[in-house]
Amino acid sequence: MKRLVNNPEDIVEELIEGYTKAFDDVKVSELSGRVVARKNIDKDKVGIIIGGGSGHEPLFLGYVGEGFADACVIGHINTSPDPYAVYNAIKEVGSNKGVLLMYGNYTGDVLNFDMAQDMAIAEGYKVKSIQVTDDVVSAEDKDGRRGIAGDIFVMKIAASAADLGYEFDEVYELAQKANDLTASMGVALGAADDPRTGHEMFNLEQGQMEIGMGIHGEPGVRRGKIETLNEVVDEITDPLIKELDLKENDEVGVLINGLGATPYMDLFVMNKKLSEILEEKKIKVNRTFIGTCASTMNMPGQSITLIKLDEELKKLLNQPCDAPYFKIK
Amino acid sequence: MKRLVNNPEDIVEELIEGYTKAFDDVKVSELSGRVVARKNIDKDKVGIIIGGGSGHEPLFLGYVGEGFADACVIGHINTSPDPYAVYNAIKEVGSNKGVLLMYGNYTGDVLNFDMAQDMAIAEGYKVKSIQVTDDVVSAEDKDGRRGIAGDIFVMKIAASAADLGYEFDEVYELAQKANDLTASMGVALGAADDPRTGHEMFNLEQGQMEIGMGIHGEPGVRRGKIETLNEVVDEITDPLIKELDLKENDEVGVLINGLGATPYMDLFVMNKKLSEILEEKKIKVNRTFIGTCASTMNMPGQSITLIKLDEELKKLLNQPCDAPYFKIK
Repeated sequence: MKRLVNNPEDIVEELIEGYTKAFDDVKVSELSGRVVARKNIDKDKVGIIIGGGSGHEPLFLGYVGEGFADACVIGHINTSPDPYAVYNAIKEVGSNKGVLLMYGNYTGDVLNFDMAQDMAIAEGYKVKSIQVTDDVVSAEDKDGRRGIAGDIFVMKIAASAADLGYEFDEVYELAQKANDLTASMGVALGAADDPRTGHEMFNLEQGQMEIGMGIHGEPGVRRGKIETLNEVVDEITDPLIKELDLKENDEVGVLINGLGATPYMDLFVMNKKLSEILEEKKIKVNRTFIGTCASTMNMPGQSITLIKLDEELKKLLNQPCDAPYFKIK
Repeated sequence: MKRLVNNPEDIVEELIEGYTKAFDDVKVSELSGRVVARKNIDKDKVGIIIGGGSGHEPLFLGYVGEGFADACVIGHINTSPDPYAVYNAIKEVGSNKGVLLMYGNYTGDVLNFDMAQDMAIAEGYKVKSIQVTDDVVSAEDKDGRRGIAGDIFVMKIAASAADLGYEFDEVYELAQKANDLTASMGVALGAADDPRTGHEMFNLEQGQMEIGMGIHGEPGVRRGKIETLNEVVDEITDPLIKELDLKENDEVGVLINGLGATPYMDLFVMNKKLSEILEEKKIKVNRTFIGTCASTMNMPGQSITLIKLDEELKKLLNQPCDAPYFKIK
């Protein structure tokens, strides 16, 4: 394992404490040690709660802040937060206009967020949920797909709408629309080191890649010898263009995401090839984000996310925000 | 090698093209393909040029932008930019108040930046240089030390002063002061993959670490079995506190930097331990930055940088800026 850790059992509490000490705007909720919330939540806008397992930093913690999420709730590594933690996140945010729960579509998360939602509704809270389903190769059916880096676009759109004072149902519908119009596909070149076992989370031999592998190591489309970056960008971009039915003069937002051990150098080079593909098809790029935005700890690999934008989504994507790991001026 | 690349000979041109396509505010200079500059340079403030070898992304490219550098000039991987490229960066920026060259203290960089400076001065430009020397264990003598992640603090201080309209000599002196008050120390857990050879850049066996190793694999203080994160944070923080002679009520800026394959999770956990050490000594933290800010491609490892702040440095460190990879609101 090429990581330094302390007792892995405590790693989530440690990372939450280290994180909240670094950034002034957030605190650990008094209701749950697994909930990190803004210190000053505006209760008169729609509340935005994001969450899921740990190990995807800077997601989810890094997106709690001005113009983005009001709180996040996290579980242990690759483990859903428990329902009580989610329920306490809802209480912590407690917006008068209602609270939207947003997370990637994984069985454990769906079960626990749903249970928390039911508990909160029974107490009179207004709560709805959005499961992000951007990973195009993870299922034929859109609703069955997993959420990966596209989380960020879908959450950002909802958060911007909430920030602009939109009503609860409008925010919910915009988040659904953003999810419908967001598609991602990635490639893995190896596994992350799991601090609990001291070993890699799965086996992918040196020199091999797996196209479409999920961020927890879920099976992808095919495994084979590493090809050139340009070949891989071609292979993972084509399904996104088909999925979103992108045509001449359509406009997109781009996210090139590193999974944790991918050099920024390679992500920038990816954008050269992606830009060429989009230019050739006369698809316009409204805004590009490049970075380790949704990681799998130190997994080597990368993904491309596209969101098809109409005028409203364009405005919401570009709305200023100032979360520690997502800032738009 | 756990990376996707095209022809490694072209990697710098590819990354520059991919980068400048992503961010609207910057362009490749018409004078040199290795110079990336802001589209609208204010010639009436002191010009700030940063640079060095490639392979440290998002440094240097990512720090060219509003409130930070006016341009950067980069060489091939771990290779100084050539003197003509540096000279062309000076011409591109061409500030009436003078141009400050800022880079880490490496022999090749010093030679080439100095040659460019002489060429430009011979043509009537006003130019000075700052070599950043924050890596405390790289030499006994401060002037002989290498520059690592502390580059970012020193460059930011100078850039803020330039932005606020300070005169050339004031900016130069503040940069010198910031360098004198900045100290870093790191640990390596392995090597980066070199795309030119397809292999790791040096050998550090699984389960081993090297305390104080340089970002290009330069020898550190000692090699040994991996210890706990807390033990390592203790070991690398103590020399920084001594170097800066930090005492009760002193105030610092903190940068916890990942070298490219280090999970954000681990960087956040590091900040827990570092906060505890500083709190115990009653040293105040003014602002904390955590991320892969100055990488060695996909090297596993991390470093801590502290800058001792007086009122002036505090103001300059916190001055708003909006470079793609360094934003303060």
